[in-house]
Amino acid sequence: MSKTKDRILAIALAQFNKHGTRAMTTNHIAEACEISPGNLYYHYKNKEQIIFSLFEKMINSWDDDPVDFSQTTADEILTIQLEKTFHHVWEHRFIHRELASLLDRDKTLKKMCQNVLQRRLLEVTDMVSSFEQMNVLRPLDEAERNFIAQTALYYGLFWQPYLEVIGEKANKENVMRGVHMIRLLLKPYLL
Amino acid sequence: MSKTKDRILAIALAQFNKHGTRAMTTNHIAEACEISPGNLYYHYKNKEQIIFSLFEKMINSWDDDPVDFSQTTADEILTIQLEKTFHHVWEHRFIHRELASLLDRDKTLKKMCQNVLQRRLLEVTDMVSSFEQMNVLRPLDEAERNFIAQTALYYGLFWQPYLEVIGEKANKENVMRGVHMIRLLLKPYLL
Repeated sequence: MSKTKDRILAIALAQFNKHGTRAMTTNHIAEACEISPGNLYYHYKNKEQIIFSLFEKMINSWDDDPVDFSQTTADEILTIQLEKTFHHVWEHRFIHRELASLLDRDKTLKKMCQNVLQRRLLEVTDMVSSFEQMNVLRPLDEAERNFIAQTALYYGLFWQPYLEVIGEKANKENVMRGVHMIRLLLKPYLL
Repeated sequence: MSKTKDRILAIALAQFNKHGTRAMTTNHIAEACEISPGNLYYHYKNKEQIIFSLFEKMINSWDDDPVDFSQTTADEILTIQLEKTFHHVWEHRFIHRELASLLDRDKTLKKMCQNVLQRRLLEVTDMVSSFEQMNVLRPLDEAERNFIAQTALYYGLFWQPYLEVIGEKANKENVMRGVHMIRLLLKPYLL
């Protein structure tokens, strides 16, 4: 990816996080990047392409940073994973804030996102299994394991819109409280 | 409320559930109601007024049907409450599907909804306390009680958009699986 493309994505992400995708036109993004609309158009044909690329970049950045099971303790692995998850949510907050309507507006994006999330659900389920094998969690039956994995994924996806809907500020501090919610989710199953 | 107003709301709800609010104009709604656009306008000035009234009606219908603690067993009360919750979600599915963007588009609606949800969170927390007092749930500390109440409310609000985002059909059967998820949430705390 060219330096300019990368710079456009970084600036578009910051602008979307701040103002939402609806308020931002490609002209606004070009202006924030200090390039001409024609130059932006050379790299991205429209706002949808920029949003699609930001989704791809988010997915790749997660895949490029897998769980490191060589950490000293299981609790350390869990802490790192949980904090990474909600940092990731915070960094890409416009995506989480607008998730349902972004996917409604772009069927290709929706399909890609659904495939990735099915994969994420398997990854989270594997992680829960690993914690059972490491004797962090008690042995679970399939329904329990699936419930924990789904609820953890669910918190990762909708915690931020939930905060906004019930009237709490979706600032970094509150988004990071998701870590605490997943710890409480796991608590009854801890050995 | 006049019979015509009531009929408009019932038909608008069915249309929004089927097609979403974005695809439906007031003219479409008038047509479905078999009345003139002028007659519809006499009752509701615009689509936003119809949506606002549907929110109010949903909230009132919930408030008018409180928990009946005279049921024979605690498990019966729980079953009724859970099924009522997800039936309610299903009946008003366009609201849950579009919640974040509907609230974004109407600040008055957002404020009303936030107030109602703060109240709902207290109601769910009270209900969890009642189940502790009825010896259905073991005694909980405040963090646990809050986690259970928040997660139950969270499932009530975002279970349907979650299904759509991960690529499962948001049909009645899957929406009703929310009942099962909340049962699994409670399971480790059952006495």
